[in-house]
Amino acid sequence: MTGQARHRVVIVGAGFGGLYAARALKRAAVDVTLINGTNHHIFEPLIYQVAAGILSPGEVAVPVREAVRRQRNTEFVLGTVTDVDPVARTVTVRAGDGVTTDRLPYDSLIVAAGATQSYFGHHEYAEYAPALKTIDDALEIRGRIFSAFEMAERAADPAEREHWLTFVVAGAGPTGVEMAGQIAEIAHRTLPGQYRNIDPRQARIILVDAADRILPTFDARLSATAERRLRRIGVDVRLNARVVGLDALGVKIETADGTATEAAMTKIWCAGVAGTGVAGRLAEATGAPVDRVGRVLVEPDLTVPGHPEIFVLGEAMSLDGLPGVAQVAIQGGRYAGRTIARRLAGGRAVKPFAYFDKGNLAAVSRHFAIADLGRIRLAGTPAWLIWIGVHLWYLYGLRNKTTVLFRWMVSFLGRSRSEAIITTQQVAARNALRREAHLTARP
Amino acid sequence: MTGQARHRVVIVGAGFGGLYAARALKRAAVDVTLINGTNHHIFEPLIYQVAAGILSPGEVAVPVREAVRRQRNTEFVLGTVTDVDPVARTVTVRAGDGVTTDRLPYDSLIVAAGATQSYFGHHEYAEYAPALKTIDDALEIRGRIFSAFEMAERAADPAEREHWLTFVVAGAGPTGVEMAGQIAEIAHRTLPGQYRNIDPRQARIILVDAADRILPTFDARLSATAERRLRRIGVDVRLNARVVGLDALGVKIETADGTATEAAMTKIWCAGVAGTGVAGRLAEATGAPVDRVGRVLVEPDLTVPGHPEIFVLGEAMSLDGLPGVAQVAIQGGRYAGRTIARRLAGGRAVKPFAYFDKGNLAAVSRHFAIADLGRIRLAGTPAWLIWIGVHLWYLYGLRNKTTVLFRWMVSFLGRSRSEAIITTQQVAARNALRREAHLTARP
Repeated sequence: MTGQARHRVVIVGAGFGGLYAARALKRAAVDVTLINGTNHHIFEPLIYQVAAGILSPGEVAVPVREAVRRQRNTEFVLGTVTDVDPVARTVTVRAGDGVTTDRLPYDSLIVAAGATQSYFGHHEYAEYAPALKTIDDALEIRGRIFSAFEMAERAADPAEREHWLTFVVAGAGPTGVEMAGQIAEIAHRTLPGQYRNIDPRQARIILVDAADRILPTFDARLSATAERRLRRIGVDVRLNARVVGLDALGVKIETADGTATEAAMTKIWCAGVAGTGVAGRLAEATGAPVDRVGRVLVEPDLTVPGHPEIFVLGEAMSLDGLPGVAQVAIQGGRYAGRTIARRLAGGRAVKPFAYFDKGNLAAVSRHFAIADLGRIRLAGTPAWLIWIGVHLWYLYGLRNKTTVLFRWMVSFLGRSRSEAIITTQQVAARNALRREAHLTARP
Repeated sequence: MTGQARHRVVIVGAGFGGLYAARALKRAAVDVTLINGTNHHIFEPLIYQVAAGILSPGEVAVPVREAVRRQRNTEFVLGTVTDVDPVARTVTVRAGDGVTTDRLPYDSLIVAAGATQSYFGHHEYAEYAPALKTIDDALEIRGRIFSAFEMAERAADPAEREHWLTFVVAGAGPTGVEMAGQIAEIAHRTLPGQYRNIDPRQARIILVDAADRILPTFDARLSATAERRLRRIGVDVRLNARVVGLDALGVKIETADGTATEAAMTKIWCAGVAGTGVAGRLAEATGAPVDRVGRVLVEPDLTVPGHPEIFVLGEAMSLDGLPGVAQVAIQGGRYAGRTIARRLAGGRAVKPFAYFDKGNLAAVSRHFAIADLGRIRLAGTPAWLIWIGVHLWYLYGLRNKTTVLFRWMVSFLGRSRSEAIITTQQVAARNALRREAHLTARP
């Protein structure tokens, strides 16, 4: 009402960190601009279930506009942040057309841009082994998994058939473990009886990791239990094994015993993260230090050294070895939002960010998860029920909670999957070529 | 068990016609091969709701393998039929990789390949005005509709904003009417309150048809009622109007008053069908006559003249002016399957195909449909309730019936849509270019 401009907060990224930051500013006297590269907020812990044909995109994602519609001080901008100018205090946003760009001014900036998949310098792997970060990735991987069984069914030659029935998942963190478990379940539970020339149960699922155990952020005994479970449902777990080569036809795996080549048409990459372009641009422009994989090393209050007005959080930040999990982003988002609100209200100095570890959960297969809740450690069905409860609790909106619960009942009680639909989904034209390479390469 | 080969039935297409033909052969002593270009059977009458962000792909489509898994005499082949040889009695199938081809022998052939969209010779329109035939089409159109509002929100210039907020639907048959109604509802009901710079209610939705009324297969008074309803919810209905030009920026519409250009970034093509490549190849090879749009003119028993072993049905056939609706395909599929079974059983001569017209339904908007059930004609909420009941009844499987009913409750009672997620869905690389043209063209 007065001519005085309100404090402008720009939030880059509408994942957990960005969305919770915006919410924490709901009642603050600020103008919030929330920028995201897609029109939706993704519930990342369940994205592998889109790839596995259990859930639809709309069940793990919600339009950002819908999520913030009641927050009158918040504006959503669909676009990609291509640059940050910490002196002029602006961010540059490119619209979906790839042409229009705007410079948006900020007084406070929150970078919650997440991370991208790291191929450890081997960008050429991406073509043959998609990562699982976006809805489009999930649909692409879904298409590749179900198409592989179709190609195997039509293969005349037994070696070619086996080639199509071999799946390699690189990286045995939660996403890799969950993905490998899902492919095993598709092969052993969903598809048997649907083919005439192949037995889907003969699929080989290889999970490769350079570490000496799976799920290294969990207690070692839980890792061992999860590994036994994976082996029991038919996953070939290879530890102390590094992927040293990858192309359309297979992977080269190096172990202490030497290097072996596995012929596998379908590869999925779940190993390693890297800072995004925004984090890199921010670090360049502010001289902020970054860690080995390009995440910004922040102060204890999540700000960039020398720039108390710039926060970096979630997977984009590096602080005390905190893992790239949803809770770190959620708590970081809340902290950044509240800190800005408190500063404006002239409140007392803010305490450093203190992460409260609520524990770690990973689903291995139907009826089986592991839960590392500090002193309480569980494996099996009890942990799986906790996993279900926690994921439904954090999932956005009653609508999605309801249908996801229904989908789970369908897939856990029955054998079928609600969304086993192959689309010709493509991450732009680039992936059309990837798919072509994937399908035309002759084993 | 004996060395004698069983009668082989090849069915091309797993739409309504193909699936019901396969089912009718469930207990016959035949080997059925069902061929389809995608891995799923689509419930076509609801595909526009995928485009409108109400339903997910898995809710209007079911994997063909799942649909026929219990039918032990049926094999599914994922591939495109590229040729028919009526002398050798084989069909040629190309696999998803675009490379592998097989020739499959048949004793009886059922061509239920549906139809493609006809641009009346203007193939260049396809790039700018996608049709709504496949799941990928629906996701592409969904992406274009919701992206248009995002682009309008960012447009600085009022003319550009209006350009993005204008939608043209060509063709006022059921799909065109339903699509136009959905865009109106998105603009007036779903999106208001979510934008800061635009009022989505200012969107213009133009429905164009060359005929003098919408929904011409319905009773004329019902057409008029539906037209009034469309106008009331904000659709600009243009009758006796022909699209004579179409590009990235708009359409040229010709009426008795002359030719006018409408600036519109989003165009959807729902006008006219044409026979598919298979029907054309079949006609060439057998010398069968085709109608004006390339559909095969069949005998009263749905067979090709001179080829009692080849059936053509559904949208691929032309017989007595029967419309291209689900019931014609369903009844045709059952008839062809039963005819083959009866011939093998040495039964008496089969009566000609008699179509039983169960009536016509079209949904115009929330709470409003028209129903032309012979002597009973309804418009409004009663017809809408019949529409809901009939569609749930025919939808495949209890699982989909349940979730679709839930989605409808969400979208009819509330304002939100479960699947308003923009993916970078692309019908192969070609569409990546279409989207680029769509987004980069400057109004």
